[in-house]
Amino acid sequence: MQQSNDAKVTRVVLDAMGGDYAPAELVKGAVEAVKNREDIQVFLVGQEDVVREELTKYTYPEERITIVHAEEVIETAEPPVNAIRKKKQSSIVVGMNMVKQKEADAFVSAGSSGAILVGGQVIVGRIKGIERPPLAPLIPTEKGVSLLIDCGANVDARPSHLLQFAKMGSIYMENVLGIKNPRVAIVNIGAEEEKGNALVKETYPLLKECGDINFVGSIEAREIPHGEADVIVCEAFVGNVILKLYEGLSSTLISAIKKGMMSTLKSKIGAALALPALKSTLKDFDASQYGGAPLLGLNGLIVKTHGSAKAKEITNSIYQCVTFKEQDINGKIKKNIISSTEQEGM
Amino acid sequence: MQQSNDAKVTRVVLDAMGGDYAPAELVKGAVEAVKNREDIQVFLVGQEDVVREELTKYTYPEERITIVHAEEVIETAEPPVNAIRKKKQSSIVVGMNMVKQKEADAFVSAGSSGAILVGGQVIVGRIKGIERPPLAPLIPTEKGVSLLIDCGANVDARPSHLLQFAKMGSIYMENVLGIKNPRVAIVNIGAEEEKGNALVKETYPLLKECGDINFVGSIEAREIPHGEADVIVCEAFVGNVILKLYEGLSSTLISAIKKGMMSTLKSKIGAALALPALKSTLKDFDASQYGGAPLLGLNGLIVKTHGSAKAKEITNSIYQCVTFKEQDINGKIKKNIISSTEQEGM
Repeated sequence: MQQSNDAKVTRVVLDAMGGDYAPAELVKGAVEAVKNREDIQVFLVGQEDVVREELTKYTYPEERITIVHAEEVIETAEPPVNAIRKKKQSSIVVGMNMVKQKEADAFVSAGSSGAILVGGQVIVGRIKGIERPPLAPLIPTEKGVSLLIDCGANVDARPSHLLQFAKMGSIYMENVLGIKNPRVAIVNIGAEEEKGNALVKETYPLLKECGDINFVGSIEAREIPHGEADVIVCEAFVGNVILKLYEGLSSTLISAIKKGMMSTLKSKIGAALALPALKSTLKDFDASQYGGAPLLGLNGLIVKTHGSAKAKEITNSIYQCVTFKEQDINGKIKKNIISSTEQEGM
Repeated sequence: MQQSNDAKVTRVVLDAMGGDYAPAELVKGAVEAVKNREDIQVFLVGQEDVVREELTKYTYPEERITIVHAEEVIETAEPPVNAIRKKKQSSIVVGMNMVKQKEADAFVSAGSSGAILVGGQVIVGRIKGIERPPLAPLIPTEKGVSLLIDCGANVDARPSHLLQFAKMGSIYMENVLGIKNPRVAIVNIGAEEEKGNALVKETYPLLKECGDINFVGSIEAREIPHGEADVIVCEAFVGNVILKLYEGLSSTLISAIKKGMMSTLKSKIGAALALPALKSTLKDFDASQYGGAPLLGLNGLIVKTHGSAKAKEITNSIYQCVTFKEQDINGKIKKNIISSTEQEGM
């Protein structure tokens, strides 16, 4: 297997078989990435003939894209634990094993969320001291983006998990997004400290006392779109509800507005005139320009993009892996976790 | 105190002091209600001189609006339990006591949610057999509205609570909104039965086996705006997050779109042409036309409107009380709970 051991090059394994537009948009995204930046090596993992056929459509620096054959494909509907256990030759398992073996720095996939979350824990493994790896997508706000941590599959979290999410989220936002001293808030049903369910009430003082983060208190869901915090901490069930309602409500409202504007001749003319400005507004509410959602706290980086990711989101996810490596996020997480463990032991 | 004992008349106590537009919009809403329908008696509870001054602005059937003096006002920021305990002469406590004493059928308030939720339980009291009274607002969808039950203040619910919410929500949607055989779904992070947190996993089989409801399975937050269920069951923390994100994201997107359309001259002209059609679309996403959120399972009806409620929402909330009484919702809830208790005893 051809590979670069140059420390300045980020080696990204891209799952060529996952997502709604596989393999075409994935291959396109990989080609864009290596054409635009020289510090990237991509391994396209998937069925070799299918991937190669797609790749031949492009001109690109060929030494920086390698196809890695993986016969099997994990479908979205498959029970994740079983799929990871049985499909050893799937693009997800083969790709994650490369990260585990340090043959690559990161794995990017638009495939089955469940399989990616299970594989991340089972194959790549957690950083020592990390209790749970959270999935942390960026969500668009009036002011930019916020990191919503955790939206994964491990529900019924404990306060200590949420504290680690807050720390990892802060490190990520500060170093990958460049937000100085990111504001951390916990999702709650009121602004007061005494509000909330048992989990939030127990977590609140831990966040308040934590010297490593800039904790600004509770955030009500109403304030999330206003960008009142950079790192939004919650357990995965609540995070999942927020993420999916965000997607569902945005698309419903936008399509209702478009439909409404097409309802009369007068409004149709108006729509045509307003459309360019409208499109640019809605683009601000498109988080895909920042890349996919990292699964943090693992021995390597796993990025889950939207299932509907097109080339642009794939390219940006690959860049995200470069920043993650360059900024040594995992080194910073390890250092933080070790110092916390030492403090607790004092 | 003047009052009608005519069974055909619905007696509604309206908190004239609660909400952002008190007392003007509340008084206006009450006047509209008694002018439009003859089967309504309104008690305006609040500081008599303030309320009377507002009332004198209108011509209306005077025998059907009575002012009930209440010296105190509970502010939104006050800790609810304390406020209910100490402010015996507040509009909320006086109004709720009238429902308790059967001097009125329902109490409507745009005031402090916390105080209304606490007062409902402490003053009005639960129907025997009801474990928790849920707050159940209507949320707008592509297809109309859905009932989101529970969005109250009692978090960390048990499966038996959620089962009761499903039953009460079904009775409400069938009889107040006129939706035949309403579809009941539980909020979950995936469509499969084995998905979810501990609460959802334990509740799912109870809903599935319940013969009184039309359970259609799990609903992901993404599907809520599409109107895939009529009764959306969840515990209050999750319900609160959904409700508030709904409000926050809708208003953020709409204002971003408006701002975007005002950014160039061309788009401004377009906006002017498209505006009437756009307004009618956005009106469909305005749940206030259906009235406020009922607090179900109490010995009488309590309705919480938005704090920002204007006359129209108040009038509609009063009509909602009429339907609630006419359809004997509480009688139906009692019958259902008694039959469930008997079944369990078998």
